[in-house]
Amino acid sequence: MYAKLKRRTFEIVELPSSRDLPSRLFVIFIMTLIVFNVAAVMLETVEELGRPFARFFSLLEGFSVTVFTVEYLLRLWSCTSDPRYAGALRGRLRYALSPLALVDLMAVLPFYMEFLPVDLRFVRSLRLFRLLRIFKLARYSASLRTLDDVVRSKKEELLVTVFVVVIMLIFASSAMYYAENEAQPDKFSSIPASMWWGVATLTTVGYGDVFPVTPFGKLLGAVIAVLGVGLFALPTGILASGFTEEMRKQRVRRETMRCPHCGLEIEGSGEGHA
Amino acid sequence: MYAKLKRRTFEIVELPSSRDLPSRLFVIFIMTLIVFNVAAVMLETVEELGRPFARFFSLLEGFSVTVFTVEYLLRLWSCTSDPRYAGALRGRLRYALSPLALVDLMAVLPFYMEFLPVDLRFVRSLRLFRLLRIFKLARYSASLRTLDDVVRSKKEELLVTVFVVVIMLIFASSAMYYAENEAQPDKFSSIPASMWWGVATLTTVGYGDVFPVTPFGKLLGAVIAVLGVGLFALPTGILASGFTEEMRKQRVRRETMRCPHCGLEIEGSGEGHA
Amino acid sequence: MYAKLKRRTFEIVELPSSRDLPSRLFVIFIMTLIVFNVAAVMLETVEELGRPFARFFSLLEGFSVTVFTVEYLLRLWSCTSDPRYAGALRGRLRYALSPLALVDLMAVLPFYMEFLPVDLRFVRSLRLFRLLRIFKLARYSASLRTLDDVVRSKKEELLVTVFVVVIMLIFASSAMYYAENEAQPDKFSSIPASMWWGVATLTTVGYGDVFPVTPFGKLLGAVIAVLGVGLFALPTGILASGFTEEMRKQRVRRETMRCPHCGLEIEGSGEGHA
Amino acid sequence: MYAKLKRRTFEIVELPSSRDLPSRLFVIFIMTLIVFNVAAVMLETVEELGRPFARFFSLLEGFSVTVFTVEYLLRLWSCTSDPRYAGALRGRLRYALSPLALVDLMAVLPFYMEFLPVDLRFVRSLRLFRLLRIFKLARYSASLRTLDDVVRSKKEELLVTVFVVVIMLIFASSAMYYAENEAQPDKFSSIPASMWWGVATLTTVGYGDVFPVTPFGKLLGAVIAVLGVGLFALPTGILASGFTEEMRKQRVRRETMRCPHCGLEIEGSGEGHA
Repeated sequence: MYAKLKRRTFEIVELPSSRDLPSRLFVIFIMTLIVFNVAAVMLETVEELGRPFARFFSLLEGFSVTVFTVEYLLRLWSCTSDPRYAGALRGRLRYALSPLALVDLMAVLPFYMEFLPVDLRFVRSLRLFRLLRIFKLARYSASLRTLDDVVRSKKEELLVTVFVVVIMLIFASSAMYYAENEAQPDKFSSIPASMWWGVATLTTVGYGDVFPVTPFGKLLGAVIAVLGVGLFALPTGILASGFTEEMRKQRVRRETMRCPHCGLEIEGSGEGHA
Repeated sequence: MYAKLKRRTFEIVELPSSRDLPSRLFVIFIMTLIVFNVAAVMLETVEELGRPFARFFSLLEGFSVTVFTVEYLLRLWSCTSDPRYAGALRGRLRYALSPLALVDLMAVLPFYMEFLPVDLRFVRSLRLFRLLRIFKLARYSASLRTLDDVVRSKKEELLVTVFVVVIMLIFASSAMYYAENEAQPDKFSSIPASMWWGVATLTTVGYGDVFPVTPFGKLLGAVIAVLGVGLFALPTGILASGFTEEMRKQRVRRETMRCPHCGLEIEGSGEGHA
Repeated sequence: MYAKLKRRTFEIVELPSSRDLPSRLFVIFIMTLIVFNVAAVMLETVEELGRPFARFFSLLEGFSVTVFTVEYLLRLWSCTSDPRYAGALRGRLRYALSPLALVDLMAVLPFYMEFLPVDLRFVRSLRLFRLLRIFKLARYSASLRTLDDVVRSKKEELLVTVFVVVIMLIFASSAMYYAENEAQPDKFSSIPASMWWGVATLTTVGYGDVFPVTPFGKLLGAVIAVLGVGLFALPTGILASGFTEEMRKQRVRRETMRCPHCGLEIEGSGEGHA
Repeated sequence: MYAKLKRRTFEIVELPSSRDLPSRLFVIFIMTLIVFNVAAVMLETVEELGRPFARFFSLLEGFSVTVFTVEYLLRLWSCTSDPRYAGALRGRLRYALSPLALVDLMAVLPFYMEFLPVDLRFVRSLRLFRLLRIFKLARYSASLRTLDDVVRSKKEELLVTVFVVVIMLIFASSAMYYAENEAQPDKFSSIPASMWWGVATLTTVGYGDVFPVTPFGKLLGAVIAVLGVGLFALPTGILASGFTEEMRKQRVRRETMRCPHCGLEIEGSGEGHA
């Protein structure tokens, strides 16, 4: 009876299936609550809303923490139904240390930490951590997992380009520091400070709060912008092409193309085209 | 006689063919009128033109609405010649609810709504809706249909990256709110307000009206810019590659492919390529 | 004798070959003169250089116009050696109307037009036309021809995306006009004026001279930026992929891949890969 | 004995292998020192750190120069173990002129040049050259070599697009100079000065310190932005696709391809793919 209940709980919380109604309702409920939570954290900071609806926001927080805590405990209790996490203590510990379980823990921990005798400033920044609840969606969303796969498959290319980008940033900022430090000692006060200009320029954001004013600085800035902008966009290009490849792989995995006339498989039909 | 006239009207308004002269003239006339209308809505707002030519603009509006209304009624009347919309009432209703017919309706509706006893402010914003007339071009242009196809074929990828982009925006804006709220309480007044900074930075527009000023805020902003700009460009990259694929498919659809085993043509082989 | 001289002139001015020394020297001389001319037009506008070296610049201009005029006349005289332009008058006229000959004419015409009794303001703007001399390089550079080929081969895609981009710009600017006109009547004074904001935002340049200030305007601006930036980058993506394809085609055209062992051609070896 | 010591030194400093412990420790030591050096050059410029830790920074510099000098001499001494650099004097000279050896020399030279009786301003700018030590990493990192390969393989495309980009920049800046010079004589004072606007616009950085204000200037600026931004992004797109190709080649080089006719392996088949 107990084992059966645990098994059923496990199925509902860990094996979301569109055919099992309780499981589906559970997923929809949790996802809705996450979205409401993220919206609440954001809207709470709007003075016109945060003050008058303070009671509502704290009620939602209390309710959410209760639900997420119960959910976490249910997962921890029932996880032993999974052969990978067999073992009352050992299995549960191993489960508790899995990434998804850690995200679930981090979703409720900030609330409980507010009761600890800690610095108020620290408590305030804990609110930001409540936003991490959004990662609870990772369990149900293929998006973040796909992004993870893409980053993994393009690890080499990304490392290469990131290294190039970092060198570019260091050189651009250092050169600009030597060129502009005398003319604008407050804005290009040091190389790390000049990096603020470097990032704003190389990402092409260009707020306009810092820019070279001396003729040599402008010449240098122009050369850096023309060369650097191209290099900075490299990781993006690689990530984008990685995404397209990954999605194609996922599609190819599902289908093998067959000739509609003779019924034979056309070898490499998916991988052969580009 | 009546049926023949309806059939002929249907051919002219719904089957644009470069060989049928009346049909061609009709298309050119309607397209010219649309372009003039869009130009008029825009130029009317220029004080130097709007005042002195007020009479001209209102005459053009009156003429256009008349033409577009007649066109809409002709379409509605003759649509029953299309087997899909057979049935005097039912067919016409079904046609009236098709996307292209709704666009045609929306192109004239704002004019008639001005006569309703409604708020003046509301009437003013109806002018903007006159711009929707541009979508009447969709009937004759392959562009918008292609864009629609691309978005459809890359739906999965776009959803994945849009989800990643939204999470990135929420996190970046929230973190920056906590970092800069104290130093610039007017600009980073709340998380939704900080999102204005987030969008300006992550899209690399960077107007320069809002940017971090504290050292920690700048460090955070730099990290967000370097990481986020790449992620934000992902949907674009996917859309661009989707476009290239779509155009290739359209070209391939005209050619043919044969099975390497039996030598017979494989229908719709264009779909198998990427 | 005369025919032989004409033929030789034709070879030197129209058939640049790296083996014929006079032809090579001619090309190098003309290209150097073009580069000097473009540099002169630019440096002449720098007050510190334009005043003291005024005499030098006008001498260079006189010399260049003489050379380019002689060059143009030589081409016009000798072009009849080319079977395509046979015929003393008819052939020369046909040659004079070819794009490259027109560029050569436009390179000297501004100089002579200064002597006509025209408005001084007009004469001033003629200087800009002297920059068109840079296009004389087109004759010797494959770059501009390749760009031309790419634009031609991707004409369809470019037209489709440009149409989408124009619609996006019109809608974004019009919507922003209605949202911000009341709050900033000087900056969003009309729809065409709002387009300055639209272009700055959608191209992500973002000077920061115009941006929405009302909450609704900011929300609208954020949505437009997120959606529009992606669409605006489409033509670029298409152009870039077109460039890669074009260069590959040019490379494939030169080589046919052979198996190094059996010496047989591997069919479609260049076109088959992507 | 001497030859054996030289051979062993050569193995340690020039043949980094993960199985030889001394060699591995040597690589890790040098790489750590490089990273510390680059960090020091940057942090030294921060007043809060540079002053109080001046002694520490100068000690680190002294230590690093000693190590790098010894490293350079060891390399120079042992290089004759490499058959390519055989010959006591001739081999060493040839080695000293190889790119990697020149980088090693440049990493220590600035320090010794400070003792020469030269201008103090010159000495100050020598500090920037200390940053070149980062290129000593090139020996151990595949990143920079890959970037080099990519630039080489796409040389043609890059040259073509860079030429187009330069022409675009010259034309845009010149046209804007003629349009805005009268209205903003301080900002668009000459064509070279207008190029600062040109670069900021075409790279989409858009600091906002310079922008057109006249109606015609704005119209021109809008057209330039829409057309030019696309052209400026071309080299980036080509570089990105070159990167993806290069990485694929490196992966393919490890696999093999066979001729469909004779079945034998085709060496360097990776080059045939794109």
